[in-house]
Amino acid sequence: MSIPTETSQTENHTPILDAEIFAAHEGGKLSAELTRPLETQRDLSIAYTPGVAKVCTAIRDEPGLARTHTWTGRLVAVISDGSAVLGLGDIGAKASLPVMEGKCALFKSFSGLNAIPIVLDTNDTDEIVETIVRMAPTFGAINLEDISAPRCFEIEDRVKEALDIPVMHDDQHGTAIVVLAALTNALRVVDKSFESIKVVVSGAGAAGVAVVKILHDAGVGDVVVLDSKGIVEAGRVDLTETKQMLAAETNPRGIAGGIDAALDGADAFIGVSGGTIDEAHLENMAEDAIIFALSNPNPEVVPDAAAKYASVVATGRSDFPNQINNVLAFPGIFRGALDAGATDITDAMKLAAAQAIADLVGDDLAPGYIVPGALDERVAPAVAAAVERTVQKRS
Amino acid sequence: MSIPTETSQTENHTPILDAEIFAAHEGGKLSAELTRPLETQRDLSIAYTPGVAKVCTAIRDEPGLARTHTWTGRLVAVISDGSAVLGLGDIGAKASLPVMEGKCALFKSFSGLNAIPIVLDTNDTDEIVETIVRMAPTFGAINLEDISAPRCFEIEDRVKEALDIPVMHDDQHGTAIVVLAALTNALRVVDKSFESIKVVVSGAGAAGVAVVKILHDAGVGDVVVLDSKGIVEAGRVDLTETKQMLAAETNPRGIAGGIDAALDGADAFIGVSGGTIDEAHLENMAEDAIIFALSNPNPEVVPDAAAKYASVVATGRSDFPNQINNVLAFPGIFRGALDAGATDITDAMKLAAAQAIADLVGDDLAPGYIVPGALDERVAPAVAAAVERTVQKRS
Repeated sequence: MSIPTETSQTENHTPILDAEIFAAHEGGKLSAELTRPLETQRDLSIAYTPGVAKVCTAIRDEPGLARTHTWTGRLVAVISDGSAVLGLGDIGAKASLPVMEGKCALFKSFSGLNAIPIVLDTNDTDEIVETIVRMAPTFGAINLEDISAPRCFEIEDRVKEALDIPVMHDDQHGTAIVVLAALTNALRVVDKSFESIKVVVSGAGAAGVAVVKILHDAGVGDVVVLDSKGIVEAGRVDLTETKQMLAAETNPRGIAGGIDAALDGADAFIGVSGGTIDEAHLENMAEDAIIFALSNPNPEVVPDAAAKYASVVATGRSDFPNQINNVLAFPGIFRGALDAGATDITDAMKLAAAQAIADLVGDDLAPGYIVPGALDERVAPAVAAAVERTVQKRS
Repeated sequence: MSIPTETSQTENHTPILDAEIFAAHEGGKLSAELTRPLETQRDLSIAYTPGVAKVCTAIRDEPGLARTHTWTGRLVAVISDGSAVLGLGDIGAKASLPVMEGKCALFKSFSGLNAIPIVLDTNDTDEIVETIVRMAPTFGAINLEDISAPRCFEIEDRVKEALDIPVMHDDQHGTAIVVLAALTNALRVVDKSFESIKVVVSGAGAAGVAVVKILHDAGVGDVVVLDSKGIVEAGRVDLTETKQMLAAETNPRGIAGGIDAALDGADAFIGVSGGTIDEAHLENMAEDAIIFALSNPNPEVVPDAAAKYASVVATGRSDFPNQINNVLAFPGIFRGALDAGATDITDAMKLAAAQAIADLVGDDLAPGYIVPGALDERVAPAVAAAVERTVQKRS
């Protein structure tokens, strides 16, 4: 994404001045507070020595008590190496801190969970994995954040494998879950089914790979992926390992070429590319097409133009209808997982979360209202409840 | 230390029941809170995307801004591997969490600093060092806690060397600083000088080594160290590397033998051994002797017995006069270091902290009042100010 130079815009077009942004960051956005006061010698003797030794020995003898008698039972680590921060790219650990603090603030505001940022001064996959695994007893769950592809795939896989606590790379799965929720309702608007549609996913990075995966899990059979060189297909010799996997799992009609070939007859375009396209490419999409142009702050195609070719349009921005925003997913996912004592975040939990988000729209469904607003307070509790039910069903 | 089995005692002998301790730990002792509300779309646009990108790029271009525009400027990590927790020993990372949370709560209560526990699932020196270094951009300062000797010495040295933020192993230096403060005033009571006294330090672990070091820095020339086998002296063949170093730097009279040989004519006994001794050993101490029996909860010798042989007696317990408690030092040390933007915690800062603690006693000095009480609210600000002045003097 390109960074606004002077001011940022909110939906009501009141400019936010840089000075206001910097003032709001002074001293940071988080604070570690006590749950109970420490004022008397008796307080100290209970919370610290000698009383605390009782709780330590209890946890030593029964490790599960750490969940109920330390803050870890409701604590999410937001962990990043600062390698893929917003549209800024690889700005490093320290410069990524304001985003991670913001994410932690969202966790608290939307789900009531405690969250703390952990930024790592390394981009090495092995080092990141072993560092996270070593400090894992500190946390109840781990939200991986803004780690660049393709390292993010291996890092998430290995950390999930090594640990028995919920772990999720939000740039992948948070996006995918909300895309699926939005697509579920967009298909209701145009009266089409997952099984019947042709979907083009533009972007083969963290979000793109996860979107393809969740579309498959939801029953979409015909997905074509685009990267900056065109359709990701087996005939190309320039594919990374991840894209070879994508080529093998998508493109059932075996088409090749560029964006025009991909969009010819497509029912849905899902843009998670970070770039923009010319609206002319959209001309040959199917009737009642769906366009999710999620690049931020500049959508792949602006909503006014997209509306000429599609019946339902969504973006990642708060100043247009149908904002597809991860905040609809991650607070409730982690809250539900922690409340249920889940040891993992599974595909079934992700699908349940997407359905819960979609269901909240209910009878208010309209082309301009396919997902709840980012500030809708019903969302996180509904997602948490759906995730928790999924965990309980399994056990 | 041995762990009380049924109840713990406070100074007023009101028993603290286990149920009360466990209830006070339910859900943990810490909470991550927002410094400003996140309620409107405008709040989100400032604290998160797109506004936050401004602060990220500013920090990328000028890393020092992380100190003022993230919470790291006032954030201490309390890091442990759970290997030397209270008197419980090596109980592991997870079981140590209640102590680390308690320490963080003390940081907040006494100094206003934010602190978060980080526990590491490894006892390997290299792994601990590299893990801490990798996540260091997350924090403003690092309080190493409850790491067993002798690994704690190398770990602290290497982490200090690698990082340009304040780092201190509190079990070493926090204890040493408060011991020096107490000894400063005890010597005023008995009218002796650092340069003239013979001091016996019982215990060659983390605290013992640091006490020896700070006594030397304060001008004490005659220090003899005891371990469980007797006087640590160059003639012994069973000495670890750390104890060989101690043998070389202490025992100027070249004495050998056990505790009786050590205490013969000694002006001060400083017990940081974790064990107890028979009071008969104290009979041949010098006139107007000083006894600091700091093992917790069972002092090396109980105060009533120690008082038969000494003019000034201190312990680590809150239910006797003269409690030598680290909480007098670490909150102010870290607060002063962070406020001053210090890149290290130096010996000069430690000496200044000890003097500031001692000075608060002032004209109220008495054999039963050589250090301020643990809850004395004057202490942390006075220590912080002294530390900050020391930093400013240097720069």
